[in-house]
Formats: sequence, C-alpha cells, structure tokens
Amino acid sequence: MGELRKSWVESANRADTDFPLNNLALGVFSVGETEPRCGVAIGSMIVDACGLEEDGLLVLAETPVLDVPFWNELMELGPEAWAAFRARMTALLAEGSEDRNRVRPHLYRQADAALYMPFLVSEYTDFYAGKHHAENVGTMFRGPENALPPNWLSIPIGYNGRASSVVVSGTPVTRPWGQLKAPDAELPEFAPCRRFDLELEMGAIVGQPSEGMVSVAQADDMIFGYVLLNDWSARDIQAWEYQPLGPFQAKATATTISPWIVMKAALEPFRTSTPARARPLLPYLREPGPMIYDIDLEVALAPEGGAQTVIARTNYREMYYSAAQQLAHHATSGCPMNVGDLLGSGTISGPTKDSRGSLLELSWGGKEPITLAGGETRSFLEDGDRLTLRGAAKGQGYRIGFGECAGKVVAAMALPDCAK
Amino acid sequence: MGELRKSWVESANRADTDFPLNNLALGVFSVGETEPRCGVAIGSMIVDACGLEEDGLLVLAETPVLDVPFWNELMELGPEAWAAFRARMTALLAEGSEDRNRVRPHLYRQADAALYMPFLVSEYTDFYAGKHHAENVGTMFRGPENALPPNWLSIPIGYNGRASSVVVSGTPVTRPWGQLKAPDAELPEFAPCRRFDLELEMGAIVGQPSEGMVSVAQADDMIFGYVLLNDWSARDIQAWEYQPLGPFQAKATATTISPWIVMKAALEPFRTSTPARARPLLPYLREPGPMIYDIDLEVALAPEGGAQTVIARTNYREMYYSAAQQLAHHATSGCPMNVGDLLGSGTISGPTKDSRGSLLELSWGGKEPITLAGGETRSFLEDGDRLTLRGAAKGQGYRIGFGECAGKVVAAMALPDCAK
Repeated sequence: MGELRKSWVESANRADTDFPLNNLALGVFSVGETEPRCGVAIGSMIVDACGLEEDGLLVLAETPVLDVPFWNELMELGPEAWAAFRARMTALLAEGSEDRNRVRPHLYRQADAALYMPFLVSEYTDFYAGKHHAENVGTMFRGPENALPPNWLSIPIGYNGRASSVVVSGTPVTRPWGQLKAPDAELPEFAPCRRFDLELEMGAIVGQPSEGMVSVAQADDMIFGYVLLNDWSARDIQAWEYQPLGPFQAKATATTISPWIVMKAALEPFRTSTPARARPLLPYLREPGPMIYDIDLEVALAPEGGAQTVIARTNYREMYYSAAQQLAHHATSGCPMNVGDLLGSGTISGPTKDSRGSLLELSWGGKEPITLAGGETRSFLEDGDRLTLRGAAKGQGYRIGFGECAGKVVAAMALPDCAK
Repeated sequence: MGELRKSWVESANRADTDFPLNNLALGVFSVGETEPRCGVAIGSMIVDACGLEEDGLLVLAETPVLDVPFWNELMELGPEAWAAFRARMTALLAEGSEDRNRVRPHLYRQADAALYMPFLVSEYTDFYAGKHHAENVGTMFRGPENALPPNWLSIPIGYNGRASSVVVSGTPVTRPWGQLKAPDAELPEFAPCRRFDLELEMGAIVGQPSEGMVSVAQADDMIFGYVLLNDWSARDIQAWEYQPLGPFQAKATATTISPWIVMKAALEPFRTSTPARARPLLPYLREPGPMIYDIDLEVALAPEGGAQTVIARTNYREMYYSAAQQLAHHATSGCPMNVGDLLGSGTISGPTKDSRGSLLELSWGGKEPITLAGGETRSFLEDGDRLTLRGAAKGQGYRIGFGECAGKVVAAMALPDCAK
C-alpha cells in the first residue's frame, strides 16, 4: 500500500489528514471575495493550482487549463496529462522541493475556504450494484426467496439520474413534495415526503469519451477519479412512481458529492477484487484484474443541535460490480459517454446490520428504528438532521480521504399557490 | 386557426410547404464549406439568421445571440424576446417588406443545405403519457385487466434518458448489441438486438429554468418549442434489463429529432384539449385550459432500395398528459429544470390499429407482422430500413410542419475484441 510521501507542508505529514502528498485531491475554492478557482488539497491547506499555472510553475498544455472553476479541462487532456500533473504537483510539494518559496504564496487554509462543485457534471447515472443492498431491499419488498431480480447477477443495473440535481457538500437539501399513496388509500395525495433517506455511495467520474463499446480495462483507463456521493432518496415517492419505468422524482431532489475529487492514481495502492461471482459474467463484463478499491466508509447523523452518531460503517470493496464494469456496460448500446459523466456506484451495504448504507435498510423499512447517541430514534430522516459521509483508503501511516460529504435536511417549503 | 401570412419568398405561400411565414421554424445549417449557423426555414429556403444579426437587421440583445450554432441563447432571453424575434422575422419576410432586398442575400436553398442539431440538449427525459400506447403495451405484457399500471392515471410517468444519444434527422442508427435473454433460456447472451423498434413522439424543449415547483400554466410558459422525436427502442434488451429500475441501454442507442424546432407561438392556433380524464388529477396537474396541440403525425418505413409505406397515422392530441403537465410534474421534487432540457412525449398511439406509434404495437409483439407496399413484412426493424416521421398542424390553406425526422438502421458492428 506504499508509504507516506513527505511534504514541506507539515500538516500533510500527519497520519490523520485526508490529504497527504500521496492524495493531491482536486477541488474548487474561494477565500474571501476571490472568484472560485481550481485548488489541490494538501494537509490542512489548499494550493491554488490556477495560480501555479499563471505563475508558470505548472504547465499542462499550450494554453491554460485551470483558468476555469472546474477540472473538466484537465480530464479532457487524457491519462498521460493526468500522470504528468500528479508528478509535477508531487515535485512542487515534496519535502525538499526547490520551488517551495515560489509555491508558498499560493497556499490557503482550508478552514478559510468556501468549496464549490469540483467539476461540471455532464450526465449522471446511478447504479444498483451492491449485492447486500439489493438483497436487503429485495427481501423487504419481495421476500427472501425472490430478493435479487433475475437479471441482477448478469447486469450492472442502472438508471439515468438528473445531472442538474447534483450539488456539492454543504448544500442544504429541502425535503421534497411528491405524490404519495398509503397502502390502504385508494388514491394518492400530494404531500411532503415522509420517508426521506440517504444512500451511501461512491461516484466515479468519466474523464475520457467513449467511441462505441469499451472493454472493462479500457473503461478503467477512462475513469479520472472518485468522489463520495449521497443519493438522497424519497422512498414513499419512489414506491408509488417507480413501476414500470423506474425511479424518477424520488431521486431528483439532490445528490450530494464530496468537494474533493480523488484521482484514480491516488487509489491504485488500494486496488482489490470484487466479491466472488455467484454466476459467471458475460465476456464483455469480465475483469482483467482487481477492479475495486479498499476504501472504508461511514455515515454519521446529527439531529438539529445534537451530537452526531455514526450509523453505518462499510467498505467500497463490497460492490459486486466496479465502476469500470458499469462504464463498459453503459457503452454497450452505443451510448456516447462523455468527459464529466458521473456514475453513482449504488448503495454500499456490507453483510452486517451496522454496515447498511441507507436508513431503509438500517431501520428495516421503518420496523426497527435505530437509536442515536442522544437517545432519539430514527426510521427515516427528520428536518434538521445533518448527514455526513466520510471515506478513506488506509495505508501505512497515511490515509487517502475525500473530505466530508455533508448535507442538512431542511423542512419542505409551504405548498406554493401554483400547486393548490 | 388563423390564415396564411403571405411572404415575398414565394415558396412559403404554397399550401403544401411545412414552412409558411406563420411557422418560422429554427434550425442550424451549412451550405458548402461554411460553418454551421442558425437559420430560419421559409418555404423551400433558409434565411441565415446569424447573417441578419451581423448585418444589424435582427437585434435581439446588446450582444450577439446567434453567433453560435445552436438556438439556446435565444431561449435564455425568455418569452418576451421570443415574441420580439418572431415579430421582427415576420416583418422582414412578409409580403411588401421594405427590407426584402437586404434580406435576400441571406437566403439559401434548403436543398443545398446540410442540417445539424438545432440546440444543445441539456438533459433528456422521456415520458409514457399516451393512454392508447400504455394500454396496448400493458395488455401485451400483463393482460387487458391490468393494462394500465395503478399510478398511470395519476402521474405522467417518465424516466431520464441520455442527452448524449440525441441526434439530428439523417444520422444513421446502428443496431445495438446488448444482453438478451430468450424466455426459455436460463442465462442471457450478448448479441445484436433482434427487436429493434421506433417510437413516434413529439419533443418539447424547455426554454426557461425552473426555481422550485411550477404550475401547469407556468410550465407552459417555459416551453420554447417542439420537435418530432423518434425514441429508438431495443425491445429485447429492455425486456431483460428493465426490472426494477426502468429502461437503460434499451433507450441509449439514439433518439432522433427533426432538424427544425417549431416555436410554441406557431402552434398556438392549434391548441386543443387533452382527452377526458378517467380520474380527477391532483391540483398541481390540473390544466388551466387546452394544453395540447392538434398535430397530424405519420411514420413511413422504406426497406433498403424499396418504396416507403406509411405504417401509422396519428395525432399529438391523443396524449393524456401535455408537455406542460410533464414539466410541472418534473419540477415537483425540486429538480432544477434548465434551458435546453428535452421532454419526449411518450409514444403517440391513437385508438385504431393503424394509428399505433411503434412496431411493438403495430405487429402486436411480433404476432401480427405488418405488410409493406412491396409485399415484405415487418415485425421489427430490419437493417437498411429507413424510418421517416412527419408531422404538421393544418390551418386554412397552410400547414405548420417540422420537416422530416428520419434515420436509417445500419447493421450491428462486428463484436469488438474488447467484448469477446
């Protein structure tokens, strides 16, 4: 798993930072009144990458790449440029760097910075690739005999989401209105969601376009990096709307991502295998080697004014299908995949009760409410609840993290006149 | 339904043109080696709207709006600018216009022009809002007793599609590969689609962004215009993949739109009511007045080297839910709707056998193949088949049309090494 690369930015050498020199996570930040710009996390600091480019310390192409408040233009340059970028940033920030005095003026404290969406989301797809999650949900809705749909072991099931609803960590999430139908009601009502939930996921960012089909290995090469992702879900809206064409408004309120993109290269030491196959895959989905990453994940819930409780701990390696397999499947029909496409992994649940990545599973459909540190119970989210996803791959004396992926639930708006 | 407005462009006064002065349909074109640019269809000609703006004949805003090869920037200006644009274009092209000699150099023959995507598709949503279509498909799959899903009469059912797969008329459509499972097979195979189909639809283009919920009336005001739309569909891929999260790769190969956007204002004389409600709608979906348009539609199929046969004739007014209702529903969850979002109506089938908007329905799932003019039969599309959608609202002595929405089916590619 490699070892810590030391930086002259002291806070980057601490074992508990998400952002050692090995990471070089990418974000978009502002300090004070400055315009949002591209930055790289290093320890407790951010180095202004746009400023490095302006000063000629970082040359990525013949024309500027980082003069825009998103990282898509670096993605477009391709894997060789991604590697060159990391090598140059590593040299600039490494212990003993000759350029440290020229880099130092470009450092800002993360504590002083506002963070923004780190990339422009082209299109957003969400998958259903966690076997424990699919089995849990299937058992609740169809019984243990029919838990997994017949296609599940053959296809990385996915559906298209709404790119316009993807927001950065910290953005408040307003409880949605929607059509709800109680099991014993004849007709639906229009009301605020009563079963608002989270889904703990990872998001993979497509960094290169497809031309026709791609192999799993090619798809893996196209992935630029990863974020934490919370796919907020309105379970009651979904239950009434989803037949026969799948979830729609239940998933369109918001999807929160971490403000930091961890490039794939930073995760390579933690590459590992997906679980054993219950059924052989078709050749186009077969993996040429380990295709998932060992990343510890957790969800914490803090009620309004209360302490936070970690309600779930799991690991990305639980996923049955990797992002590379999902991307290869996504391109089979000839669907053009583009730079900036975001692929949600699907809810990441582990085999145990405390490793379930949604309240739907944790409270078993509301039948077994969980108890928080302050004694309150939760079946689904209440107004004022703040959810925080955290994740890190853990090496010898260092960790590769994503920062926090957080959002607070705000009460539904009053019914506007237009809907009365 | 108004009457023909006469133009000094003679071909625009013919009763059989899709593009009288009343229409002013918007496209993007090039002639010879020129770069693609915004143009307005008038009779058999195109007037170079970008050229008019450069010459100062058309002033839409303080800075140029049409110096890009898409119409999104006009959309962004909002409904008052849309009306001002139409008023000015009408004045420039009307019989007796004093500017005719300054406009004339900007005219090009449609026959000489290549046509491109007329707008940038922000996101693409497809609906399932035709009652006859839903009943036909439901009867085939679930029997006549359970034809309509329980939610169908309450919700404009929709799912998110892939904006990257939307192409302009004339783009060849390659038969997709995908996972197929025969009813009697235990496991799926990876093979070219054998049940490739069309769906005759209209597409509505969102021209203004939403902020929170919108009423049906507000949603209607946000719609910029309409296109013809063919939602190419791989029925066998869909049958295996669509449970539980809806269609995905089955709909991602291509969606073809007409090269001409007909602005909503041109269709206003043809505004009419949706069919009677089988069940009262929730208040947020109730219509303040007639919300659909009387537009005759047809699909023609021509085998490779053969004559074309009109295989279906129907009308847009068959839709149970209007685009305005779909857009109002789309925004309920807080989902941000943006300029350039495309909403597919859903397949437009009428009540009779010859008014069905897909081969799935026309051949009743392949059990009743249709016969073409040349004697060939079709259950689903064959390689080399060219499909053409046409549509027009019909006034007194004039019609408002969309041009052709056409595409030819190309044989599936050989299985690439990456998928072996």
